[in-house]
Amino acid sequence: MKTILLLNGPNLNLLGTREPAVYGATTLADVEAQFAEGAQALGYKAECFQSNHEGALIDQIHAAGQRFAAGDLIGAVFNPGAFTHTSVALFDAIQGVKPLPVIEVHISNVHAREAFRHHSYISPAAAGIVVGFGTDGYRMALEALVRKAASKTA
Amino acid sequence: MKTILLLNGPNLNLLGTREPAVYGATTLADVEAQFAEGAQALGYKAECFQSNHEGALIDQIHAAGQRFAAGDLIGAVFNPGAFTHTSVALFDAIQGVKPLPVIEVHISNVHAREAFRHHSYISPAAAGIVVGFGTDGYRMALEALVRKAASKTA
Amino acid sequence: MKTILLLNGPNLNLLGTREPAVYGATTLADVEAQFAEGAQALGYKAECFQSNHEGALIDQIHAAGQRFAAGDLIGAVFNPGAFTHTSVALFDAIQGVKPLPVIEVHISNVHAREAFRHHSYISPAAAGIVVGFGTDGYRMALEALVRKAASKTA
Amino acid sequence: MKTILLLNGPNLNLLGTREPAVYGATTLADVEAQFAEGAQALGYKAECFQSNHEGALIDQIHAAGQRFAAGDLIGAVFNPGAFTHTSVALFDAIQGVKPLPVIEVHISNVHAREAFRHHSYISPAAAGIVVGFGTDGYRMALEALVRKAASKTA
Amino acid sequence: MKTILLLNGPNLNLLGTREPAVYGATTLADVEAQFAEGAQALGYKAECFQSNHEGALIDQIHAAGQRFAAGDLIGAVFNPGAFTHTSVALFDAIQGVKPLPVIEVHISNVHAREAFRHHSYISPAAAGIVVGFGTDGYRMALEALVRKAASKTA
Amino acid sequence: MKTILLLNGPNLNLLGTREPAVYGATTLADVEAQFAEGAQALGYKAECFQSNHEGALIDQIHAAGQRFAAGDLIGAVFNPGAFTHTSVALFDAIQGVKPLPVIEVHISNVHAREAFRHHSYISPAAAGIVVGFGTDGYRMALEALVRKAASKTA
Amino acid sequence: MKTILLLNGPNLNLLGTREPAVYGATTLADVEAQFAEGAQALGYKAECFQSNHEGALIDQIHAAGQRFAAGDLIGAVFNPGAFTHTSVALFDAIQGVKPLPVIEVHISNVHAREAFRHHSYISPAAAGIVVGFGTDGYRMALEALVRKAASKTA
Amino acid sequence: MKTILLLNGPNLNLLGTREPAVYGATTLADVEAQFAEGAQALGYKAECFQSNHEGALIDQIHAAGQRFAAGDLIGAVFNPGAFTHTSVALFDAIQGVKPLPVIEVHISNVHAREAFRHHSYISPAAAGIVVGFGTDGYRMALEALVRKAASKTA
Amino acid sequence: MKTILLLNGPNLNLLGTREPAVYGATTLADVEAQFAEGAQALGYKAECFQSNHEGALIDQIHAAGQRFAAGDLIGAVFNPGAFTHTSVALFDAIQGVKPLPVIEVHISNVHAREAFRHHSYISPAAAGIVVGFGTDGYRMALEALVRKAASKTA
Amino acid sequence: MKTILLLNGPNLNLLGTREPAVYGATTLADVEAQFAEGAQALGYKAECFQSNHEGALIDQIHAAGQRFAAGDLIGAVFNPGAFTHTSVALFDAIQGVKPLPVIEVHISNVHAREAFRHHSYISPAAAGIVVGFGTDGYRMALEALVRKAASKTA
Amino acid sequence: MKTILLLNGPNLNLLGTREPAVYGATTLADVEAQFAEGAQALGYKAECFQSNHEGALIDQIHAAGQRFAAGDLIGAVFNPGAFTHTSVALFDAIQGVKPLPVIEVHISNVHAREAFRHHSYISPAAAGIVVGFGTDGYRMALEALVRKAASKTA
Amino acid sequence: MKTILLLNGPNLNLLGTREPAVYGATTLADVEAQFAEGAQALGYKAECFQSNHEGALIDQIHAAGQRFAAGDLIGAVFNPGAFTHTSVALFDAIQGVKPLPVIEVHISNVHAREAFRHHSYISPAAAGIVVGFGTDGYRMALEALVRKAASKTA
Repeated sequence: MKTILLLNGPNLNLLGTREPAVYGATTLADVEAQFAEGAQALGYKAECFQSNHEGALIDQIHAAGQRFAAGDLIGAVFNPGAFTHTSVALFDAIQGVKPLPVIEVHISNVHAREAFRHHSYISPAAAGIVVGFGTDGYRMALEALVRKAASKTA
Repeated sequence: MKTILLLNGPNLNLLGTREPAVYGATTLADVEAQFAEGAQALGYKAECFQSNHEGALIDQIHAAGQRFAAGDLIGAVFNPGAFTHTSVALFDAIQGVKPLPVIEVHISNVHAREAFRHHSYISPAAAGIVVGFGTDGYRMALEALVRKAASKTA
Repeated sequence: MKTILLLNGPNLNLLGTREPAVYGATTLADVEAQFAEGAQALGYKAECFQSNHEGALIDQIHAAGQRFAAGDLIGAVFNPGAFTHTSVALFDAIQGVKPLPVIEVHISNVHAREAFRHHSYISPAAAGIVVGFGTDGYRMALEALVRKAASKTA
Repeated sequence: MKTILLLNGPNLNLLGTREPAVYGATTLADVEAQFAEGAQALGYKAECFQSNHEGALIDQIHAAGQRFAAGDLIGAVFNPGAFTHTSVALFDAIQGVKPLPVIEVHISNVHAREAFRHHSYISPAAAGIVVGFGTDGYRMALEALVRKAASKTA
Repeated sequence: MKTILLLNGPNLNLLGTREPAVYGATTLADVEAQFAEGAQALGYKAECFQSNHEGALIDQIHAAGQRFAAGDLIGAVFNPGAFTHTSVALFDAIQGVKPLPVIEVHISNVHAREAFRHHSYISPAAAGIVVGFGTDGYRMALEALVRKAASKTA
Repeated sequence: MKTILLLNGPNLNLLGTREPAVYGATTLADVEAQFAEGAQALGYKAECFQSNHEGALIDQIHAAGQRFAAGDLIGAVFNPGAFTHTSVALFDAIQGVKPLPVIEVHISNVHAREAFRHHSYISPAAAGIVVGFGTDGYRMALEALVRKAASKTA
Repeated sequence: MKTILLLNGPNLNLLGTREPAVYGATTLADVEAQFAEGAQALGYKAECFQSNHEGALIDQIHAAGQRFAAGDLIGAVFNPGAFTHTSVALFDAIQGVKPLPVIEVHISNVHAREAFRHHSYISPAAAGIVVGFGTDGYRMALEALVRKAASKTA
Repeated sequence: MKTILLLNGPNLNLLGTREPAVYGATTLADVEAQFAEGAQALGYKAECFQSNHEGALIDQIHAAGQRFAAGDLIGAVFNPGAFTHTSVALFDAIQGVKPLPVIEVHISNVHAREAFRHHSYISPAAAGIVVGFGTDGYRMALEALVRKAASKTA
Repeated sequence: MKTILLLNGPNLNLLGTREPAVYGATTLADVEAQFAEGAQALGYKAECFQSNHEGALIDQIHAAGQRFAAGDLIGAVFNPGAFTHTSVALFDAIQGVKPLPVIEVHISNVHAREAFRHHSYISPAAAGIVVGFGTDGYRMALEALVRKAASKTA
Repeated sequence: MKTILLLNGPNLNLLGTREPAVYGATTLADVEAQFAEGAQALGYKAECFQSNHEGALIDQIHAAGQRFAAGDLIGAVFNPGAFTHTSVALFDAIQGVKPLPVIEVHISNVHAREAFRHHSYISPAAAGIVVGFGTDGYRMALEALVRKAASKTA
Repeated sequence: MKTILLLNGPNLNLLGTREPAVYGATTLADVEAQFAEGAQALGYKAECFQSNHEGALIDQIHAAGQRFAAGDLIGAVFNPGAFTHTSVALFDAIQGVKPLPVIEVHISNVHAREAFRHHSYISPAAAGIVVGFGTDGYRMALEALVRKAASKTA
Repeated sequence: MKTILLLNGPNLNLLGTREPAVYGATTLADVEAQFAEGAQALGYKAECFQSNHEGALIDQIHAAGQRFAAGDLIGAVFNPGAFTHTSVALFDAIQGVKPLPVIEVHISNVHAREAFRHHSYISPAAAGIVVGFGTDGYRMALEALVRKAASKTA
């Protein structure tokens, strides 16, 4: 059973406990559980990791690159949070482990928010980008990743 | 049986016939057929429309807004092509028919291309954005739209 | 009886039917009817045209230029909608039919909205600009146009 | 009999005496007299004030705000001259006395002149903007102000 | 006898009837007639099309691409008018029908006019650019296109 | 008994009377009274001055500079209001009377408001800056000024 | 006894040991000791934390948010050092734990230094900002925080 | 005996009393006295005016314009101080009293100072500009003004 | 027999010897020989000059201006190479010898290359611009120059 | 035997294992071994540290500063990777431990890559910068550092 | 008898022969003759040099620096023409021969012309700047240079 | 014995004679002598050339390109001085003689100086860049060039 990595960046650990009237009651634990279920239903094992540390996320991406090369991981779904807009190092990390597919997800519609959220350093390296569907975006990314893997092995 | 609208903007009629080694052999007709099948499988009827005329696309969005209000259309999947980067009028059209959900789709990863493709006038008005998954993005948008409709009627 | 042209650009056909709590119940039909009445009261005949197609608006301006030269039209009142901010072609059209007076009208206060609405390609070619008076702006433009025509023939 | 304030900013005292071949022979005194007549015809009393001092204009707007609150002034017509482009303080003054309606008037078409005249600090706070109709703009503003007052008391 | 397409964009239908003292008495009809004669003298048939509608021009370019592929059209001479500065869609259209050669022509020296005319979205896709020679530019483009075709078949 | 100057710039005379639900009922008179009490409690005499005139504020700063040199004034607390963002002359005035300590105070959080409020011409010349504490900022500035004076004479 | 958090960002551990002739001999230990004394004098317990790791600071802010919600912490005083100018993630962290009051402190006058220090990502989320008072700024922030807490419980 | 006006803007009253080691001991009074002597030696009467109020300087320029038209004043030497960089109103004032020659003088080399001092709103309207010669610049401007007047009457 | 000047700027002496697989084997000598032949065929004598020295090119343009005034030179064809993007002095030189017609030629499509090649200081002064036709552009410019001369003497 | 520190920033741990056809087979381990040998040959001991964590790099620089002050370390060679373009904190760290010499090294020619790689926050604080020599740059920096140390003790 | 250098940059050799109706009949020869006379009248010998070659002007400035150091030249008057706006090398040359005083002169009012003429690389290094007085500016600069020399030897 | 070219650009002839307290007593002659010695020690002959003329430097680079192709020159070390920031022509020259290796050297740390020195037109074409090591940078470049040549012939 191959693995799919779910990476969440800074402040996403606050999900669900913050302003539930606005963001709903879905917590990061819920997101990760649903992701794991979804993966399992498609025949994969999910591994979930969240960190507020840019370096820890880079380390994870490097490790994922090695596991992809070794054939036991098919890709990553990544919500880089605020690092989206400031981290060249994460862009380089993803470029450095190509062809590992990394799908970028944003829960909110970042283009309808502050101007500094309209630019993503991550996007040019992403295997696809899903924005503004709430937590449903994780599922969309998961399914697309699996189809991508299937089409390659087909 | 409710309708889902698939809108494609300028030059998307060239799909598949242009540089097949690069873009694959999927034509717009293929895309539309697959979209229709997908919709039907989910219990909806697809209507597909492509135009190189900004005004014609605006007219379609207005009509969709009326049909959404009347309850016989659940939303639109829209690849605005090059109008993404230049059309305030399409942004206003989508804003003007809110709460009709319009999902923005781009086949290629626009953020990995020329700088003028990094900005979208459409995105702030979109109910979600799917970028860089090739033609699989249409399917992702379709399924998300249906889930969105389902969650509202639930 | 000479003619005055009322031109409305993209999305203005939605007027009145969209968010009536905010924009009021005045529809485009109302605006055109009031304009026609106002024109008639001043001894003129109104012709009204709305389009979401930039090219159709350019065609209208060209035709108006010919009728102005022929003496049976005294000018145009023009709300270019979103084309205000993106259309060099409409600017060129108005410049190209000078000295036809074209008065630019905006219902809302565009300067209190998004930054991209603060610049108008049309304004440098306009015979006058009326912004932010709601639909009363059409009347102000109509009366000013008539006074302008009167002062020339006086 | 309620009052309408006419405020003119820096250099507008030069009106009419400067380059009469270009600007016509209409002086500021003429403008103020016509405005007073126009106001009276509509059942109002005009008060006119011109100053080259930003602070003096702010003081006037504050006073107008108090008189509006007290019910003996219905609004102001304001040509801020060059302060349009540089005075955040005047913007704050108008915001600070809301809902006093202040209509911004420019005699010339500022958008057809130097680039630094294309931006107005005043506009976002204005109850409406009239640009490029020559001195006829004051009349348009006056009449619109009266209609606005009438529609509120109606 | 193969075809050469002459495309003219918005407002070029006004040519010759507008400010003849400045632009001369050459009308679009004259331009097209001279182009047709020039083409015939070189052994080609000219087809001429002018539109103020961006979408109509895109449609023409697509059709030309098909005819070029079929071998009965050798290229296009295109004056995009104001769309030069605003239309990503026309750029995409020309890119999309590569290797159809499209030569960009501007009658006036756009670089000596307003700043917004200094940038062309079309140029990076053009097979060559001719600027500022008046209507003689069409002839230069025609002859260059024929030489280009000749050198390929040689 | 030495003096501490409290300077307030344009529109701060409106404090408390404008939108009391938002800004509270504290008027400028209240602010000045509290400042005077606070100064007295610390062994100083307060002098308060508000003006909507940039020149009047410059004159005050010059006078304060002379009194500081003469030893009967220890510094100034200054809320420059909108002049913060536009007045090089006030910056020069404060630089010109160095080492008079001038503390810049803003009641609201200017960095959470319009972009043009994010830049201060005054700050580089200020002896310290207090932003966004409401009217409590005046007290913070007062106490800091007194400590600064004490530390110098110690 | 409730807690007040003192957070110091990157390089602030160098305080006092670096260029003592310029920055004085006050070390971070001194700052923290004085802060603790000040807090105690006002009836609070101080907790001090410094890190050169952005992630560690985010973690602290999240923890503080939980303790604020639980009622045993009244707010934080935060000198984000260089992260002020680059960290969207810290901004999001502070926004995410609202209404925890976080006061931003800068020892030096950042507005009198390099241009890249004039912009703060943190400020729009701060409960107040104190700049350029040297280490006295920590005390000002502490006292303001306590007054803010007092006024809420009053 | 005709008059020459010497105008000095904000903060120039501080001249000579501020940092004499740097700026020398020349006061504004000295500058004005030398200017008066220089004027008299050339057969003219000097009038000197300094203000920190933009409006007062505008009033002076207007008055000078009238006296120039009446033939008893030959021009003005003007050091606008910090208003150089911020005052569109002073630019308009000078334009409005054309052909009154106004020579712009700066004591220091503004181009070797902060970036915001590199742009002058006044310069495009000036009859000449003298920068960076210390107070000798006033003399240069005076003599140039007299030669300009002489060449016209010659 | 009148003269036509062919001017080539920096690095054009490398033509043909550099990357022949890319640029072809046409050397500058070839270009100049073909130009001379073309000129002769049209009844003119060509003079060719290439330099890597901006000053030498300016000197040539000045000399050409004198010969044009004297009637023995009809214009110049000029490929300014990299000076296109950096030389205000060459722009001034061409402006200074008006009405000498100078046609600007670029071999490659500069608009499809680095951003700094998109701006030309020369273009606003040029009598026409030919871009991206390879060395055929020199012939186009030559023929256009001759037609221009002919139309003037006609 | 004194120490020389070799610091490598984010993603440099991927060196050699990534795209060996492009980057060669030199791994970070190779680079560090060669550096250590080079140092030893010159009479120094090398210490090598790589991290993807900005904070960890700052900590290292602080420690190096202390060891430099203590006399047992002569400087650092630092390839900041992607932090070059985003980290003000690393700039402050290097400034804060002055006069520790830190030489900035980039393996690739960053100026020939994406625009965001052209700016370095680190460079203004560096004791020298070596760019684009591949891994030979580390050796160049090492030798320069030793010569710098030698010249000081000489 | 000491020397004063008059340097004129590119295109100034065209002076007087170009558009005499606009620029007057004063040639560069006239300017140089008047400068020489003026210098002689003040007890100095003038040397005049004009070049269209940036390098030649740099060479002259270097030579002047040596002669200034040797005591037989008191300074230079320099009209850099178009190099004003593009030459960092001339700025460095003047900085490199400090304290040689170099006065920058512009005949026309460059601030009333194209935007690219508003910035001068030379000004920050100049001992003074004279702009817009026509050829009288050379005389003003000459006299100021002599006074500057006199005040140093006094 | 093969040759290595040392090229120095504008103002570098002033080296050593200018402000020796700051720049040291090393003259250009010293630099060139040391370079020659260093080259000889490595088995190469140095040729040194300095010019203030951009064109002369381009000519040298072209000649070096030919000699490199002929096999009697291994590369160039180039300090372009101020032309670094302004010369596209030098960039093109180096690109045009590829694969001649040209190493860019700057004596001072240009990134710690004026903003206009932070951008280099030369760098993208350079075979490596050495900045801020004083004159030691020439030696670093020389040795790197020799290693580069050796590795190719190895």
